[in-house]
Amino acid sequence: MLRDRMHEAAGLIGSHLDQVLGNLPDVPVVHAMAHATRGGKRLRGFLVIETARLHGIAPEAALWPATAIECLHAYSLVHDDLPCMDDDDLRRGEPTVHIKWDDATAVLTGDALQSLAFELVTADCVGPDDVRATLARTLAIASGAQGMVLGQALDIAAETATTPLTLEQITKLQQGKTGALIAWSAMAGPRMAGADTAPLAAYATALGLAFQIADDILDIEGDAATVGKATGKDTDAGKATFVSLLGLDGAKRRADELVQTACDALSIYGSDADTLRDTAKFVVARKS
Amino acid sequence: MLRDRMHEAAGLIGSHLDQVLGNLPDVPVVHAMAHATRGGKRLRGFLVIETARLHGIAPEAALWPATAIECLHAYSLVHDDLPCMDDDDLRRGEPTVHIKWDDATAVLTGDALQSLAFELVTADCVGPDDVRATLARTLAIASGAQGMVLGQALDIAAETATTPLTLEQITKLQQGKTGALIAWSAMAGPRMAGADTAPLAAYATALGLAFQIADDILDIEGDAATVGKATGKDTDAGKATFVSLLGLDGAKRRADELVQTACDALSIYGSDADTLRDTAKFVVARKS
Repeated sequence: MLRDRMHEAAGLIGSHLDQVLGNLPDVPVVHAMAHATRGGKRLRGFLVIETARLHGIAPEAALWPATAIECLHAYSLVHDDLPCMDDDDLRRGEPTVHIKWDDATAVLTGDALQSLAFELVTADCVGPDDVRATLARTLAIASGAQGMVLGQALDIAAETATTPLTLEQITKLQQGKTGALIAWSAMAGPRMAGADTAPLAAYATALGLAFQIADDILDIEGDAATVGKATGKDTDAGKATFVSLLGLDGAKRRADELVQTACDALSIYGSDADTLRDTAKFVVARKS
Repeated sequence: MLRDRMHEAAGLIGSHLDQVLGNLPDVPVVHAMAHATRGGKRLRGFLVIETARLHGIAPEAALWPATAIECLHAYSLVHDDLPCMDDDDLRRGEPTVHIKWDDATAVLTGDALQSLAFELVTADCVGPDDVRATLARTLAIASGAQGMVLGQALDIAAETATTPLTLEQITKLQQGKTGALIAWSAMAGPRMAGADTAPLAAYATALGLAFQIADDILDIEGDAATVGKATGKDTDAGKATFVSLLGLDGAKRRADELVQTACDALSIYGSDADTLRDTAKFVVARKS
């Protein structure tokens, strides 16, 4: 069931991206935008579509914000992979944009993907004007210097810090770096429907943290071929991770607790939210 | 009169930026955002405020989109100055962000400034929901792969091209690189008022082109201390510019014609638009 739904969402998002990017000028930056948005789990876009469905909104209507958040996420990866940032050559099993093209193209590709996210989320078919304005404004806040960029800045600062991060600090870093966009995605459904966002905000906070802990566990236990990017990097770099702070068993226990918290937060929705509960379990169990 | 109005607008925008950035976390990226948005002519923000005033909207209400476009413009400069792009050490007479901090901070600073622009333009006090959504969507289109980023990509491609650009190609490049944001700024006023954007679109097209021609002339005639950035760079690099294509006198003549076109486009507004006419004259006469 979860697998089918994720597959359906990924298919819709992929086709939509082909169509949107196909309407842009035929230049290397646009080819790189297509490369950067290809593949991946589409977890964020899936959360948009699934939380919209939970509020009676059809996947086709939720597709624009779903594609938007995938563009936003892809932009962050393209910039994060740059030599002056994480310096990664491999992403989703493919050469990163600055390897396949060059650094300048990677900077511009990320920039244009961020713009495209705001273009998509404010498209007429997304819904009434207040929904479009709210989705854009909340996406901007989640992305910027009090959200994702803050998390990335804290991450970079941690690399040159003389003492490893505490659990509190690494949690704050994660809440920005991956948590903010996951939370936006999960709250998109109630926002589109004008419903209360609190239950899905609580779900997303736990989910986002569980996601990052699972990532740190994968960095230890995964192999690069399955994960699609270099593994063991954070450990080799001596960076504090949830695993280094909690131990491998402690991290796994914490991830399981968070999955439970995420599932409990959805009680108001009853069994309608079972796909989202399965999503939380999947996020911790995934191998890539 | 023009000087007073520009001074007033720059003051309002500067104070607003201080307030907005003062509410963000106290981290290097936010300090760099403040550095990157300091100074400059604030031409784009001024156009927002002045075209809003022309439609009966007070400067205080137009301040949010005015500050937004200055953030967007500042982001483009921070990324454009990066070593992998134009590699400039000096901007507005100050060290560029990657010089004062580092490349990673410059990438993140630009990214966060772009997000901030969309946050500001969708703020509640900007106006009704349809205005906020429209301003965000048109700003996204002006910024992305069919607007500013396209212009920058064409600019980079021109550097390695074997033949210099034609007048048609350089005009297209300019329309993206500087024209799209200038056009958005000039159309913000009628958009906020729900009025026809056509006269100001025509004004902005001529103004944007005149602005770029004046920039190319300054690159030849200006001195670095007054201009606030390196001069003679485009000429030394053998890049096609409006001056290399039209000659110095021809470029000056073309700029003057465009100022006339810009002024004529405002006839519907009568003498109410005199400040905008003076702005067009200023853009060509400026020394920095």
